[in-house]
Parts: sequence; C-alpha cells; structure tokens
Amino acid sequence: MTELKQTDGMAGELGSTELVFRGTPLLDRIQGPDDLKKLSREQLPELTQELRDEIVRVCSVGGLHLASSLGATDLIVALHYVLSSPRDRILFDVGHQAYAHKMLTGRRDQMATVKKEGGLSGFTKVSESEHDAITVGHASTSLANALGMAMARDALGQDYQVAAVIGDGSLTGGMALAALNTIGDLRRKMLIVLNDNEMSISENVGAINKFMRGLQVQKWFQEGEGAGKKAVQSLSKPLADFMSRAKSSTRHFFDPASVNPFATMGVRYVGPVDGHNVQELVWLMERLVDLDGPTILHVVTRKGKGLSYAEADPIYWHGPGKFDPETGDFKPSNAYSWSAAFGDAVTELARQDPRTFVITPAMREGSGLVGYSKVHPHRYLDVGIAEDVAVTTAAGMALQGLRPIVAIYSTFLQRAYDQVLHDVAIENLNVTFAIDRAGIVGADGSTHNGVFDLSYLRSIPNVRIGLPKDASELRGMLKYAQEHDGPFAIRYPRGNTVKVPEGTWPTLEWGTWERLKDGSDAVILAGGKALEYAVAAAGDLPGVGVVNARFVKPLDLTMLREVAGSARTIITVEDNTLVGGFGSAVLEALNSMGLSVPVRTLGIPDEFQDHATAESVHARAGIDAQAIRTVLAELGVDVPLGV
Amino acid sequence: MTELKQTDGMAGELGSTELVFRGTPLLDRIQGPDDLKKLSREQLPELTQELRDEIVRVCSVGGLHLASSLGATDLIVALHYVLSSPRDRILFDVGHQAYAHKMLTGRRDQMATVKKEGGLSGFTKVSESEHDAITVGHASTSLANALGMAMARDALGQDYQVAAVIGDGSLTGGMALAALNTIGDLRRKMLIVLNDNEMSISENVGAINKFMRGLQVQKWFQEGEGAGKKAVQSLSKPLADFMSRAKSSTRHFFDPASVNPFATMGVRYVGPVDGHNVQELVWLMERLVDLDGPTILHVVTRKGKGLSYAEADPIYWHGPGKFDPETGDFKPSNAYSWSAAFGDAVTELARQDPRTFVITPAMREGSGLVGYSKVHPHRYLDVGIAEDVAVTTAAGMALQGLRPIVAIYSTFLQRAYDQVLHDVAIENLNVTFAIDRAGIVGADGSTHNGVFDLSYLRSIPNVRIGLPKDASELRGMLKYAQEHDGPFAIRYPRGNTVKVPEGTWPTLEWGTWERLKDGSDAVILAGGKALEYAVAAAGDLPGVGVVNARFVKPLDLTMLREVAGSARTIITVEDNTLVGGFGSAVLEALNSMGLSVPVRTLGIPDEFQDHATAESVHARAGIDAQAIRTVLAELGVDVPLGV
Repeated sequence: MTELKQTDGMAGELGSTELVFRGTPLLDRIQGPDDLKKLSREQLPELTQELRDEIVRVCSVGGLHLASSLGATDLIVALHYVLSSPRDRILFDVGHQAYAHKMLTGRRDQMATVKKEGGLSGFTKVSESEHDAITVGHASTSLANALGMAMARDALGQDYQVAAVIGDGSLTGGMALAALNTIGDLRRKMLIVLNDNEMSISENVGAINKFMRGLQVQKWFQEGEGAGKKAVQSLSKPLADFMSRAKSSTRHFFDPASVNPFATMGVRYVGPVDGHNVQELVWLMERLVDLDGPTILHVVTRKGKGLSYAEADPIYWHGPGKFDPETGDFKPSNAYSWSAAFGDAVTELARQDPRTFVITPAMREGSGLVGYSKVHPHRYLDVGIAEDVAVTTAAGMALQGLRPIVAIYSTFLQRAYDQVLHDVAIENLNVTFAIDRAGIVGADGSTHNGVFDLSYLRSIPNVRIGLPKDASELRGMLKYAQEHDGPFAIRYPRGNTVKVPEGTWPTLEWGTWERLKDGSDAVILAGGKALEYAVAAAGDLPGVGVVNARFVKPLDLTMLREVAGSARTIITVEDNTLVGGFGSAVLEALNSMGLSVPVRTLGIPDEFQDHATAESVHARAGIDAQAIRTVLAELGVDVPLGV
Repeated sequence: MTELKQTDGMAGELGSTELVFRGTPLLDRIQGPDDLKKLSREQLPELTQELRDEIVRVCSVGGLHLASSLGATDLIVALHYVLSSPRDRILFDVGHQAYAHKMLTGRRDQMATVKKEGGLSGFTKVSESEHDAITVGHASTSLANALGMAMARDALGQDYQVAAVIGDGSLTGGMALAALNTIGDLRRKMLIVLNDNEMSISENVGAINKFMRGLQVQKWFQEGEGAGKKAVQSLSKPLADFMSRAKSSTRHFFDPASVNPFATMGVRYVGPVDGHNVQELVWLMERLVDLDGPTILHVVTRKGKGLSYAEADPIYWHGPGKFDPETGDFKPSNAYSWSAAFGDAVTELARQDPRTFVITPAMREGSGLVGYSKVHPHRYLDVGIAEDVAVTTAAGMALQGLRPIVAIYSTFLQRAYDQVLHDVAIENLNVTFAIDRAGIVGADGSTHNGVFDLSYLRSIPNVRIGLPKDASELRGMLKYAQEHDGPFAIRYPRGNTVKVPEGTWPTLEWGTWERLKDGSDAVILAGGKALEYAVAAAGDLPGVGVVNARFVKPLDLTMLREVAGSARTIITVEDNTLVGGFGSAVLEALNSMGLSVPVRTLGIPDEFQDHATAESVHARAGIDAQAIRTVLAELGVDVPLGV
C-alpha cells in the first residue's frame, strides 16, 4: 500500500512524488471496464494514483516495464472510461505500457504473474484477454493494425471505435509513418493517441522527434463533412478555451517556424495536452471519438510519472531489476552480460581500427553501447526504431570504406531481413551483424524469442554465421569480421558470460569447429548457448564426444566428415527452430557429401514459445543438459542415474 | 535515329512529341561523364533529346523500363554535368530509371544487352560499373544508403558529394521516411533529388502523395551556419527570380493551407521545379551542392516524357512489351499469366465470400488486380510501396473478421518477414499470402528472384505453404485458405498458365500430395514450376515416378513414407534456394521419421543469380528437364540419348 506525495524533487517542473503506504479503495471495486464507468469523473485522479501504486508494487520484484506503464496510466483510464472494450478496440503499440489496461480488464489479481511461466504476458496478447486487441511486442505496428480494423469494420458494416496508443519513439519507425500515410489518405474513423514521453528505451533521436518537441498548440481544423464537422463547430469555443488553459499546465513550445505534418497528411491533430490530467483527457476523448476520419490526440506524458527516482532516470527505470518501492534502492548487478562483452570488445576494436562504426536501432543500453557511444561518439549512430534503416545505412558506409557493425537483437533483425539480403548480401558488403538476444529470451516470450535467425540468415547467400561460446570467441569473431570481406553474423544469447582481459584477441579461422571432447558412441555438435548444455550433458561420459560447432555457415565440413566417419550417432543441439536451422544444415551437408550416419536433431520445435525462464523453455523444448542425457540414454549410452 | 517533335497531343499541358528519325551527334561524343562536361549548357537540351531517342529505340525491343527512364533523363544529365562520378556518388532509388546514367557512363554500346544474360542489369549494380553507387532493385533504400555514405565520408575525413534520386512513390515507403528522419536530425551534407512523376508503377496513393501534390513553391530557408549560410544569402535574390520564373513553366499548386514537412524535419527544401528544363536544373544543382546539410530538390517530371503515347498511358509504358518506336503500336499479349489467373480467381471468390479483401503494395497491374479493383473497389486496398503495412493491415482485418489476401511478389514479401511472423503467425491469423513471381524471375535478376520464400516462410510456425501446378490448383488452394483458419502462403511463378472456366473450384486437402506417375528406380518430388520440369524429365521413362509435391508445409508425410519405402532414390526439385528449402524439409522429415533413403536435392545453389531468362538460370542451376535427366542417368536410369 503506497501513497504518492507531492515533492519538488529533482524531476522538475511537472512535480514528482515519493511513496507512502495506503490502500486502493477505488481500484478494489473494478473487475472490468464496466465498473470503471460507475466512478465519477472526480474520482478518476484518485484511481490513477491507486493504479500507479499497484504498478510500482508489482514492478518492484524486478524485470517489468515500470516507467512506461506509469506514464500511460492516465490516458489508459481515460480511454477505458470513454470507450467500451472489448467491443471498441484499444491497441497498444509495443504493448509494454499497458499494465493499467490489464488491471482494469480483470487481470489485477494476476499481475504478480506477469512475464512468469503460465502467467500474464508482459505485452498485450489476443489469446490472453478479449480486451487485448493485438498481440504485440515489436514497435510501430499499431497504426497498420488499426487501419485494418477500421477497414474491416466498414467493410462488414459494423460500428465500433478503434483507438491506437503509440509512443513518439514508435512513431518514428518507418512502418508507422507509412501506415499514417495511408490512414491520412483513406480517412477512416479512428483515434490515435500519440503518447509523447520524449524517449523510447534509449533517448529518442531523429527529426520527427525534434518536430514533436516543436509542435505548437494547433487550432483544431476539420476537413470532413456532416456530423463530424458539426461536432467540431460546436466544440471550437470550449476547445480553444481548453487549449488555452492547457498551455499553462503542459510542456509545450511556441516556435513560429514549426508546422504540423499530421494535418497536411489528412489526419486531424489535437494537442499537445497534459497526459496526466485524466479528467481533461476524458473530456477531450468523449468529443474526439464522435468525429469522422482519423484524429491524432497528442498527449505529453512523463515516463516514471509519480515516482521521483523513476522520473529522474527513466532509462534505467524502463525495466529495472528488483528495487525497494519506497526508496528506489536497488542492488546494481555485478554480472557481466554478453551485451557488455560486446560493448567492451567493440570499444577496444574501434581504437585499433578507424573503419569501425557501430549502429544501433534505439538499443544503446540493451546492446551494451553506453560506454562505446561516449568513447567513440563520432563513430556511433542511433537511427531510432528503424532496423531497416540501420542495416541499409551500414550498407552505404561499407560501400564507402567503413566496417560498420550493426548491433541488433535477433528478433528485431527480422525486421530487416530484406535489407540484409538486398542491400548487404548481394554485393557481399563488409557489414557485421552483432546479434544479441539470440535464442530463447525467456520472460519477453513469443514476440521476442530470437530462434529464427539461423534459419533466415542461413538461406541468404554470402552471409557467414558464427556462435561464440564465450567473450573470447566473440572477440575473435568480431576481429575476424573486421579483417575479412563480406557480411558476418555473430549471434549470442541474453544472459551472462565471463569477462576477459583487455587486449584479448584470439585468432580464429572462420568456419573451423573445435573438438572439445572425444567419443565414438555419440558426438554432440552444438554452438553458443546450446554448447553449454552439450558440455554439461556429456560431462565425463566415456564415448560421448562434444564439438564446438561455432560456425553454422559455412560448416566445418572437414570435421563433420571426420565425425560422421567415427561416431555411431551425431546429435545436433541448437537454440533455434528445428526448421531450416543448424541441424538442417548438418543434414543437408551430410546428404550432399553422401555420408550416411544417424542424426538426432534437437532444437526449438516448430511452435511459438510463450514466456517463461529460458531454462524452462529449453527444458520443455528438449535441448537442456537433462534432455540431451535422455537422448543419450535412448541411444544406449550408459548414463548414470540422477545426473 | 529518331527525332522528338512537338505536338499538342493527348498528353496535356506539358506538350508531347512524336518520333522522327535523326542522328545523335552530341551523344556520339560522350564516352564518360568527363566528355559530358565538355558540352556547353546550351547543348544540354539537345543531348537529352538524343538520350531519349536512344532510350526509346533500346526499349522498343520490349521488357525494359521505358517511361521512368524517359522522365529522369534531364535530371540525370544535370547531375552528371554538375557532379563528378565516380568520386561523387549518385544513387538511384530502385534503379530502373537510370538508363540515361548508363549511357553517359560508358555503357551506351551495351544498352541492347540490358536485362539479357551476360549483359547490363536493368538496375544500377555496383559490380557493373564504378559509376553505379548502389546495387538496387527494391524501393526506398537510397536515402539510408546515402546517409551511410555521407557518414562514411565524414568519418574518414573525405570530401565528396552524395546525391540520391528518389521517386515520389519510393518516398512513401516507410524506410525512406524513417531514413529522412535521421537525415534531418544529423544534417550531413547531401542532395536528395525528389523525382516527382506522380506515380510509381501503379497510381500513387497516400497522404504524402496528396501532400506533394499540394506543395507550394517555398521560400528557400537555411538553418545552417558558415559557408552554407553565406551561399544562401548570396543566392536568395536569383533564386527568388528563378522560382518566380519557374512558376510559369512548372506544374505547381498554391494551397495556402499546405505546409512543408521536409523543412520541419530539418531538410532544406527547394522546389518544385520543372524536371525537364535541364539548364535550370544545372543552374540550381551547381548552387545546391555547395551548401551544408541535406537538401531536397523537388523536381516535377513526366513519366514517358517526350513520347506522346507513353505520356498518355505511363502505367502500360512503365515496362512495355515490344513496340514500334514511331507509332507506339504493339501487339497485346494473348498469354494468360499466373497473375491473371489469380486476379480472376479472387474476383470470383470475393463475389461468394463477403469476407474476402485484397491488399496490394503498389502492384495492382503486376498482380493481376486491375479487374478485381474495379469489381470490388470497397474490398481492395493499395497501401503504396509499403509491404510491411500491407501485411499488418491484413492482420488487423483478420482480427476483426475479414479474410484478407495479401497479393505480393515473393521478393517484396522479404520486406515483411517480421510482419508475417510477429503480426500474423503468432496468433495464427486468417491471412492469405498470394505470392507472385516466386522462383527465378529472369530478366530482373538477383534483386528480384523469389527463391528464398520457401526457406524463410517454412521456418515460421503456423504458416502453411502451397505451390499450385496450374490455375485450377491455385483456385483450390485459395478456396481452402478462405475456408480454414490460419495463415496460408500460395506461391506461383512469373509466366503463363492455362485459363480455366469460371466456377472452377476443385476441392483440395491442404497437405496432400498427388502421385502423377509411378516408378521405383527414382521418384521425383516437385511442386509448382519445378513440377513442369519433373514431368518433362520423367516423360514415359519406366521406373521414374513423379509426385506433385504441391505442399511444402506441411509435407504429405504419408506419401513421403510410401515413396521412401518403394523408391531406390528420391529426387527433390525446387525453384528455391537449396538452403533450408523444400529438399531440406524432405531431409528433415525423413530423418525424424528414421527413414534412410538416398536423396538428391536439386534447387537454386547458394549464390545470387544474375539476370538471364528463367530457363537459362534453371538450366545453369541444374533444375530443368535436361538437368534432371542427367541426374537420372547418373543414378543408372536408362535415359535415351538426345532427349
């Protein structure tokens, strides 16, 4: 039980608060959106405080999306107060800001299970609740989804509202801009709530961001005909009054040079308004949802709203670890992540090689690049949430003599598949892909698992693929990639590894595997995370060999031939889908070499994997040490019990 | 030898022309950009006419990109006159408008070989000429490439110009907009020539297009400092004069409500200017290239410029068949394409099923949808060049009860890989992908071959994949997809098939293969285009079986097991990369069923395939009938000579 108390702390002019324990009498009454509508408008500010209290409490266990959920609470309450979900559709871009939405739609009791196995998703998920309009996790998709819904509504002669909530960061994704282009053209009725918190996970970048910073309070305009037009006419005066009041309470700017591209695109624009004044949001939305055509309501919010320490450092508090909800105290992690290992390696590499240039699509923190960006600011580029732009910008750099490294999560590289193929691979350009979060990521679940990259990258000619087993191999592969021509993909998992001393640059020949343990009953081929399981499973079992199959493209055909000639069975293990992945590559290679040897392929089955710990998913998928031992036992290897 | 003669024909106010034969004295002097610079400015209009003559002559053989190349000729001459390629980089978005560029950079003698095996590419290609800055074919990539080049230049302390030519259609692609976002933020020196011809291949759509139609002649503004600022000050007067003159000769609009988003994004905007006044373009570009930061020069051009019949119908003349250059006469094709078969099927289907909705990303003509769009205008959507938006809009429709069909080329679906996975497949939504131009496409070459879809789609859970052998099976599969839940991908090649009567709706069970011919020496498994080759190769050879493996996901495991039990060898043939494709799926299935039978996998090797006829590439790749016969002979089948 916490209370939010006003303070004039470091968070600046909007005011911030500290926590005091107290109850949640209003929230206790709400089992669903209908209960929310029974509250009076005057009670809504109190309700949003209670929701924020709950969010802080839920998130203090760590690993949840705190800051953005606090920021979006007021606008979510307003949307559910004005609209009628599930009939009306409320879409959340990315979906990690929707905790208040989950709590208002019957899932409050399950909030402690968010991101846990069998529990709620960290995002919205269609199969979780009829109130979740889209299943999501990646950014910039909500506007195209909303357009499709509005068109379906009209095509089927139905009548409901479609509202999309999109952050300013997501809006700079090309897909969102392109969708807006069609939305402005077709002018289907919908409400777009632009949740402008001035940052995505990293700080926002780009000209559109600058533009939004410079938006004026616009005179409302209306191009439509009929009911909408009438409504606007009757609204003009009160709205003008409201806007004029809003000026004093909202972070706004008056730059006479600025203009409004939304309006020119045919989308009605209203704003910016205070995204933490829930009563005013309700007042406005009630009027906006009746208008024809698309409307953007630009609301300014603060990530971490109501929590002084989160407002002060919303990047850390985007998805913090465990913390004390009262003080914000937390224990910094001492673990050395793969991301940090990459960041350290590339910071050193760039000192040695003036051609090194690192590009991130809005993932400076997640990709371990905070240090790099400070040491090498002129060879660092954050393109915002635009993975396609990241890859093709790298292609342009490579064409002109640089050796760019695109630091990207496996799941987000999916968004630049064609750019890897068309812009990089056809001309065999010197672009390296440092693929973080490869394999099962765990708590973020099916939208974020990086279990397709081996399959989709392997089928692209010229792309070489490596899976380092540790930080040292990661460095060896990065160094190799910087010194050789062509595109290289280096994939490593979420999680930790062991730090290596500065100056560690092992020589590694791309395409060569490493035999770690001999054995002729069964030989396990595995790379990266899967290799850890293979080594643990083999232990000191006689007869079980282990090969560090650290290159998936090209395979080490020499060693594969040796293994095929000496092993009774080959076992492949991979933290990737079984369809078209590493095991498939081994089958293709054995078949084309005309070698016949029994192969057991272990990997992620051909189904989307829900959120759970990575270890749990690996166990279920049958690729962890225990599962490998079970396979070994099936093959007749003498495996001691209880191991 | 042709001459362009002024006429007041149907092409409207810009004037149009008819062809008269004559010589090319100026063009004859030009072996490279240096020779161009020896001409006086006054000679440039004459040169552009000669270039257009040549383009018409070259294109009259059929299959080339006529209209856009005619439209871009003047701006290309101006760019090469002002810049110094290859030191300065000139990038062409898509690259099919660059014939004049090829002719000015030493390739005039080879223009007859464009798109032919061993000849010039139909696009720009880095490996073809040092003057081709990027290898391209897909749209909207040039701005990110240009940004990368400008950053490479600055990072390496070099000094050259970067200029990108992008059409208004390409600019509405999300990737281009997102790149512009970063370009406006970073403000690196570059010139963007917005080649506004008011249409991509289909008519342009979208709000940005509307916006561009409404652009004012803007007062030039300059936010930069130093040299750039000074240059602008000294330019202001003459530019204003120029603009004022330009008004009379340019297609322009004065809508006081319109504003300029480029300017607000931090990109200097100049225009619109007449894209066919080469001397004025030179005058402007000479001044613009010296300015700091990014500049957009908005030029208005006409597709088909100078050719009355092409100006009147630039959609047909985008890439026409063979024609008489003097009269524009051409013989309409009587062939029935796969695209037409799809269009007919879906037009009928939508009559029966009110949930059918067809979406295209700017490929109405190419996808056979002209008829459909007229019969079912309210269940038809063109989202412009934005494949990601097409797929996710379909997802939104499917979530709300429609049965959308995304009609898309295989190579362009690559641009929506993540949207298929994240927005459609995770929730198993009812979206059908009608994938045209699957397999080797021939003349368009490596950027356009659709030989990856089986691999990249197969690895996505829930996606079903079918390869119809003819128009009847195409209908059966479409019907099945409309009546069953989940995402379906139906892929068919470029080229022709046989028309079937209206009302042909065969019942087809998804996942069942069809045994066409028995045989136990070797059984060939193939679907789609590859099946034609398999049938031809097997002929009436005793012992050679053929299976119509029309479903790649799921495979027909029952029949596969039967075949594996009875055939000495299985041969898989596919018009897809061998890596992770159909053959790989068969190997995976046999392995997991524990079946051991020799398998020969034939398919496209793991290399990009240059332009040539599809038949030629298939022969080289070893998947045509002759190649299959060679394999049969190797396997000991008695193959008669000379077949």
